[in-house]
Amino acid sequence: MSDVIGLSKNKKKYLLALQSKKQRQKYNKFVVEGDKIAREFLSQNLFPPELIFATSSWIETNKKLLKVHLNKVVTLSESELKQVSSLTTPNQVLVVADIHSWALDAKDVSKGLALYLDGIRDPGNMGTILRIADWFGISTVYCSSDCVDLYMSKVVQAAMGAILRVPTAILSLEELTQSNPEWPVYGTVLDGSSVYGQSLPEAGLIVIGNEGRGIKPENLKLLHHKISLPSAQESGMESLNAAVATGIFCALFRQPNA
Amino acid sequence: MSDVIGLSKNKKKYLLALQSKKQRQKYNKFVVEGDKIAREFLSQNLFPPELIFATSSWIETNKKLLKVHLNKVVTLSESELKQVSSLTTPNQVLVVADIHSWALDAKDVSKGLALYLDGIRDPGNMGTILRIADWFGISTVYCSSDCVDLYMSKVVQAAMGAILRVPTAILSLEELTQSNPEWPVYGTVLDGSSVYGQSLPEAGLIVIGNEGRGIKPENLKLLHHKISLPSAQESGMESLNAAVATGIFCALFRQPNA
Repeated sequence: MSDVIGLSKNKKKYLLALQSKKQRQKYNKFVVEGDKIAREFLSQNLFPPELIFATSSWIETNKKLLKVHLNKVVTLSESELKQVSSLTTPNQVLVVADIHSWALDAKDVSKGLALYLDGIRDPGNMGTILRIADWFGISTVYCSSDCVDLYMSKVVQAAMGAILRVPTAILSLEELTQSNPEWPVYGTVLDGSSVYGQSLPEAGLIVIGNEGRGIKPENLKLLHHKISLPSAQESGMESLNAAVATGIFCALFRQPNA
Repeated sequence: MSDVIGLSKNKKKYLLALQSKKQRQKYNKFVVEGDKIAREFLSQNLFPPELIFATSSWIETNKKLLKVHLNKVVTLSESELKQVSSLTTPNQVLVVADIHSWALDAKDVSKGLALYLDGIRDPGNMGTILRIADWFGISTVYCSSDCVDLYMSKVVQAAMGAILRVPTAILSLEELTQSNPEWPVYGTVLDGSSVYGQSLPEAGLIVIGNEGRGIKPENLKLLHHKISLPSAQESGMESLNAAVATGIFCALFRQPNA
């Protein structure tokens, strides 16, 4: 079905280069791996696929989906795929796609419920947070510049397609809040007031801090409300996982007022 | 400070054996790695440390903690530690400890809020769920027999000390519910009634399903209430991560009634 068979030196070099953030930014491209997510990417236009590397059996099974992408398909053996995969378990397919620029800037925020991630470093957490944002219909996930790269392979895998649907932007919290002074800014901290029983707004920004150090001091100053999730008295935990905390705060903000 | 220096063949064999569930069960021992968690384990008696493998600098820094454990300490070089570590980033210390038997059976349940995990397979999810249980003061985490082993290295790492505080038991849901017919059983499913606005009890069992297939059919029959977390209409996600969902349901059950 595809005219190009085998992994050329140049294509291999290109795929391996895209494992680095710098090269992803240079080419404005990133890689998605795996059957389900690849099929999602081939069915949309926001992140156009540039190249599709797949085994002959995957190509055979997905003929229909590939119809409009024929000139982009390269047939690889499983061992060739393994050479360019960033996963430990080899996959049947790997897609190179454009990074979509959501073109959101500080003045252009949706007035819905949004997240601001202050230095989320763990790729698994970042991907899971994008999934949560997708689930709850969060309008935008804003990231500080020291967050893990959104297009890193582990983030894309953990996000499971949410990357296609959740608008993201890299922006300082200062810029975002200065341009939207009436938008309420909630920060999740360990010593804030209990989130339970508060009347939470439908629209607002929820700031989530880094896994280890929480929200940066300069960003703490920009919060309007500091909120916490009460722990059990006997708990020995100092904090919850950042993605779990994000899920809980989103669920509580989305809870209809009694 | 320690009399024993270097990694003997037998000790190496023992440590590597403990990476398998079968051997952990045979010896009733497991391994914790890393500075913070090792210090937690050396300060408690529920899971008594049997052997402590550490670099000389770690031993020097933690003299006080090691005072009561002197005969258990083995000094290793960093490269020796690397040979027996199950982590990619080498650590300064590794502790072999007894597996504590919480001696809970079906008739002996606390009447508080408990979790039942139906086939949680991902070690990161399991560890994160134990952290959540610790945070919310969950009375017991019950596991079906097909859950990932609680004492697997990745679970212990992700649990970050919660394993010391959260009672766990492996038990069938049938046995648990038959022995406690008045305990309300809530199952988290995709097509249940919205959890929002329900009057949730302070005591009860929350059943969490497997990452892919959810709650097993035979366990679905045992539920008294099927509850769901509503997603946004435009969401493309089929489900939330199992640990995130657990955190959200625990937070909602712990929310004081308005």
